[in-house]
Amino acid sequence: MRTGQKPGERYVRIVRPHAREFRRSPEGHIVATERVLEPRGPVGRLWTRVKRLVIGPPLSTAQSIHERIPKVKALAVFASDALSSSAYATEEILLALVLAGSAALTYTIPVTVAIVVLLAIVATAYRQTINKYPAGGGSYIVTRDNLGDVPALIAASSLLIGYVLTVAVSISAGVAAITSAVPSLHGFQTHLAVFFIVFMTFANLRGVRESANIFTVPTYLFVASMLLMFAVAAVKLLVFGDLPQAEATALSVVEPLSLFLLLRAFSSGCAALTGTEAISDGVPAFQEPQAKYAATTLLWMAVITGVLFSGISLLAFAYGVVPGHGETVVSQIARLTFGTGPLYYFVQAATMGILVLAANTAFADFPRLSFFLARDGFLPRQFSFRGDRLAYSTGIVALGLLSTTLVIVFSADTHALIPLYAAGVFISFTCSQASMWTRWRRRHEPGWQRGIIINGVGAVTTGLVAIVVAATKFTQGAWMILAIIPLVVLVLYFIHHHYQRVAEQLVLDPKRVQLPRPAGKPIVIVPVPGLHLGVLPALDFARAISESVTAVHVTDDLEGAHRLRQQWEEWDQDVPLVIIESPFRSLIHPLLAYIEARQQDEPNRMVMVVLPEFVPKNWWEWVLHNQSALRLKATLFFHPNTVVANVPYHLKR
Amino acid sequence: MRTGQKPGERYVRIVRPHAREFRRSPEGHIVATERVLEPRGPVGRLWTRVKRLVIGPPLSTAQSIHERIPKVKALAVFASDALSSSAYATEEILLALVLAGSAALTYTIPVTVAIVVLLAIVATAYRQTINKYPAGGGSYIVTRDNLGDVPALIAASSLLIGYVLTVAVSISAGVAAITSAVPSLHGFQTHLAVFFIVFMTFANLRGVRESANIFTVPTYLFVASMLLMFAVAAVKLLVFGDLPQAEATALSVVEPLSLFLLLRAFSSGCAALTGTEAISDGVPAFQEPQAKYAATTLLWMAVITGVLFSGISLLAFAYGVVPGHGETVVSQIARLTFGTGPLYYFVQAATMGILVLAANTAFADFPRLSFFLARDGFLPRQFSFRGDRLAYSTGIVALGLLSTTLVIVFSADTHALIPLYAAGVFISFTCSQASMWTRWRRRHEPGWQRGIIINGVGAVTTGLVAIVVAATKFTQGAWMILAIIPLVVLVLYFIHHHYQRVAEQLVLDPKRVQLPRPAGKPIVIVPVPGLHLGVLPALDFARAISESVTAVHVTDDLEGAHRLRQQWEEWDQDVPLVIIESPFRSLIHPLLAYIEARQQDEPNRMVMVVLPEFVPKNWWEWVLHNQSALRLKATLFFHPNTVVANVPYHLKR
Repeated sequence: MRTGQKPGERYVRIVRPHAREFRRSPEGHIVATERVLEPRGPVGRLWTRVKRLVIGPPLSTAQSIHERIPKVKALAVFASDALSSSAYATEEILLALVLAGSAALTYTIPVTVAIVVLLAIVATAYRQTINKYPAGGGSYIVTRDNLGDVPALIAASSLLIGYVLTVAVSISAGVAAITSAVPSLHGFQTHLAVFFIVFMTFANLRGVRESANIFTVPTYLFVASMLLMFAVAAVKLLVFGDLPQAEATALSVVEPLSLFLLLRAFSSGCAALTGTEAISDGVPAFQEPQAKYAATTLLWMAVITGVLFSGISLLAFAYGVVPGHGETVVSQIARLTFGTGPLYYFVQAATMGILVLAANTAFADFPRLSFFLARDGFLPRQFSFRGDRLAYSTGIVALGLLSTTLVIVFSADTHALIPLYAAGVFISFTCSQASMWTRWRRRHEPGWQRGIIINGVGAVTTGLVAIVVAATKFTQGAWMILAIIPLVVLVLYFIHHHYQRVAEQLVLDPKRVQLPRPAGKPIVIVPVPGLHLGVLPALDFARAISESVTAVHVTDDLEGAHRLRQQWEEWDQDVPLVIIESPFRSLIHPLLAYIEARQQDEPNRMVMVVLPEFVPKNWWEWVLHNQSALRLKATLFFHPNTVVANVPYHLKR
Repeated sequence: MRTGQKPGERYVRIVRPHAREFRRSPEGHIVATERVLEPRGPVGRLWTRVKRLVIGPPLSTAQSIHERIPKVKALAVFASDALSSSAYATEEILLALVLAGSAALTYTIPVTVAIVVLLAIVATAYRQTINKYPAGGGSYIVTRDNLGDVPALIAASSLLIGYVLTVAVSISAGVAAITSAVPSLHGFQTHLAVFFIVFMTFANLRGVRESANIFTVPTYLFVASMLLMFAVAAVKLLVFGDLPQAEATALSVVEPLSLFLLLRAFSSGCAALTGTEAISDGVPAFQEPQAKYAATTLLWMAVITGVLFSGISLLAFAYGVVPGHGETVVSQIARLTFGTGPLYYFVQAATMGILVLAANTAFADFPRLSFFLARDGFLPRQFSFRGDRLAYSTGIVALGLLSTTLVIVFSADTHALIPLYAAGVFISFTCSQASMWTRWRRRHEPGWQRGIIINGVGAVTTGLVAIVVAATKFTQGAWMILAIIPLVVLVLYFIHHHYQRVAEQLVLDPKRVQLPRPAGKPIVIVPVPGLHLGVLPALDFARAISESVTAVHVTDDLEGAHRLRQQWEEWDQDVPLVIIESPFRSLIHPLLAYIEARQQDEPNRMVMVVLPEFVPKNWWEWVLHNQSALRLKATLFFHPNTVVANVPYHLKR
């Protein structure tokens, strides 16, 4: 720092006090006010207006509020994913069993029981995580903390893929609820699904600050509608002694009932467990005492999910519902219970509502996980930037694009997507549980004996289920997930490696590295397309920064070159003109070779290329200009020791 | 020019004599040798190798050969488009008539006769054009010469659209010839068509220098195969007294036979006339005496087209062929004549061959017309650049993309594309004929009385046909063409207007405009993301060109900013650091506001932003860096009086 100056003084000189866009901070730096965001020019104004309309006015970082939400709302926010999966889990079990004919549907009940037991184990295990990671214990964080980078990346990839699938599956299932109720919408499933995803992407770019309230209503409506459905069915059974039966369908036996088929039905039903992790990830959002409340909420979530899922499975069995015919199982049950009246439509609407909300949780989780990954250098930095509305825009847009692709590729068919779904989820469960087990074993914190058993059982169970799911669903799509996870891990690892390598190369020790004495003036080369007013600012600027300026004209038109030389000599300024004939019509290559020749001539001086560029009055006129300049810049960018500057000539009309 | 220097002398100083990439020309400029094209770096080498493989080694401008071709080859080159249209013209007439039931098919013959008469009129009229425009008389050139810009642009737009449709229609019809012979390829029409277009785009980027030879064989094979088919059918008729009949199909009358339907059939058949203009456009390619030979070739083309077209119509009528069933009319005729044997497949292959060649003529015509338009400033300049192989690459690629789009949108269905086709062609015919008429009337050149009648009849006839085609095909797609032509005209006109306005603004009178005295050193602003080695070259460069250098750090992370300030003060170089706090997290806006504040402070000095940029070792690592720098550059580009320079920091690993 120059002597005799206080930190603040210099800025008075640098920024005029009446620059309304800035104010001074007490620490000596300057603070940009909201005024700097004011758009410039008509296009900027239009863009800003559209942006404000779609995603709202910008929020300052200080406005980011760490909302604390009470238990009742928290259940709604975090449980929508888990609860909603009961809307399709039973159907997936039936779809697997039905291959062995109607008689096999009897096994719905034992399979459901097995899954509910699994749910109890996983929920119990995750309560441990909540206690130990009150600041948020997603699989990635817990695994990185205990098992290191590679397992953490496996967990992270499984989760990232899982979130994309959550959106695709939930939205597809939600659309199926609609098309079940309104059959005339059949054939538009993909369109509807894409529409919902696009809508949600924008909603999340706005930032869903009021999320807790938005979530509460549909979640409890869904729970209420399901419980009502169970009650009505129970009353019917008690009063009439039996239940109406679904239309009997002649079922052909496609494959014999086998242990493998039962395991596949079990794997399909495991979709019910997705979303169980959400609460352990979101502990900081709870009111104090956070860990306790979060653990209670998790318990409630598991109980309600278990009840809804078993209830639907029981009713499906009792009604003799067979999946298919373009109508969901829940829709069939609701129709048999309520008839096709207002209550039926209410159930369908509530189902649709909670499924869309479930997708929305992925829109919170995916960007947050990408932020963690970007912060740790595993994803490009853009994922850690927050947009105007404090949302992690890059992650939101990435999730929107990926899930849209998935929905289009799989034509919004829930049943086609499910086999991809559970494998990733259980891999991340396993990583998380194994990490907790390792933690207990290493640290011997109070209660470690109990913890080691709970999380040990959790790890072994979820690991086994992961294997069962992968094996029984392998040919139906799980192989894709098993192929993609290592690929994503590799990409994340590579990005990390790259950032690290760059950081190592860049370390600057302020004590030892000095700026060199100011270097000599650069050699300046000004490529000129001709002699017209557009090149004057470039030549002018070039002469301002160096006395060694050469104008270069590359051409294959010798007559034109001759004319230019005459004009140039007539003009008679002190800038020499070099004409390079290019018999192969290339503009870039001869110029590059010329720059290199000059550089070899004077290896210690920098070469600077000053490009005259047209700035048209209207941005869309831009395609009519500067195409060569753009290519030249792209090429020179990879050229060592060359600096490229653009001197704009602003067209007035 | 400086005193005491000869033009040559200065270059000795500027380029070392041992720079192998250049040689000196006697006129004092330097000439780039083929060495400058040598690729740099592994990516460049790979790209160059791929490019050489696909499109061949580069050709120098001097290597462009104006081939003169004899009449027999010329007929093949220029007539393939016109001749080939007989492969689908009859079918289109039948498809129109068949709506009124089988009885209406009798009208095939009178409709065909009317079209042959029209062909005679148009061919006679174009012989006049050939005589008057031996340097090439496409509609655009002739119309611009006689009627001015707007009619010329109408002709040009009609032609541009027509060429795109030529490719789409010919390739679709060629694919139909294949799928007729090999029914198992049904359903892959679009894939096949896209494949052919892509193949042809690359072939034309290579430059089809051997085109005359490539063309000769399939054209004459097609003519021969058709004549053979006629002969065999005639013999059969003479020997057996009658011809085998196509399977009778029960035809329901969709609409009654009306004048409108007959006119629509006529309009459909007018597709036979497309391509008639080709010869008048290509006179310079003929051997001397050019005009005479070209006129003779045109006569022959018209006669052969007439014979083939009438023959096919006659046979279709005689065999009682009904269009449809996924088999083309020509294929049905060939099958009935030859049976499904080698001769049948020969006819199909020859048809396919000439249709692909017809599409290829559009690949010569579209880029040439775009070149003329670009030369006259109606299209972006890129259309006038010739690529490595002397082909107008931009035009070729544009045609490839546009016709691919069309083929995909219309599922490679000839019948769906035809209604779009003829309207544009006849509009350009009309423009051309009206221009010739105007020319005769104005100039009273020898033979003007005869000319005025011939071209007057031509103009009126083609004009009437244009109206009939537009009216009868309006609802079937011609409306699109009538909507798009004015749109294209507007775009072309706007581009011209823009270039003209720019040129006016740029005129520099060497006698009056001087470079100002070298301007003051610029104010240099170096945005720094932190203190690391990557910013050193930028700071170094900044200090080399000006003594007024400020480093600016924009951030929303106050702790980080505090650390940076400490580091910077510890570093203690003579570059001041300004920290701007950005509560809304925007990097660009505060920097822009800061630049403006500095500019208002010293309005007479240029502001230069020197951006440190990372150049990663591998180009694909680039996505991980510079995203903010890129956005900043894009924004500053539109900012008056600001120069942006990138100082690269080359990562070594």
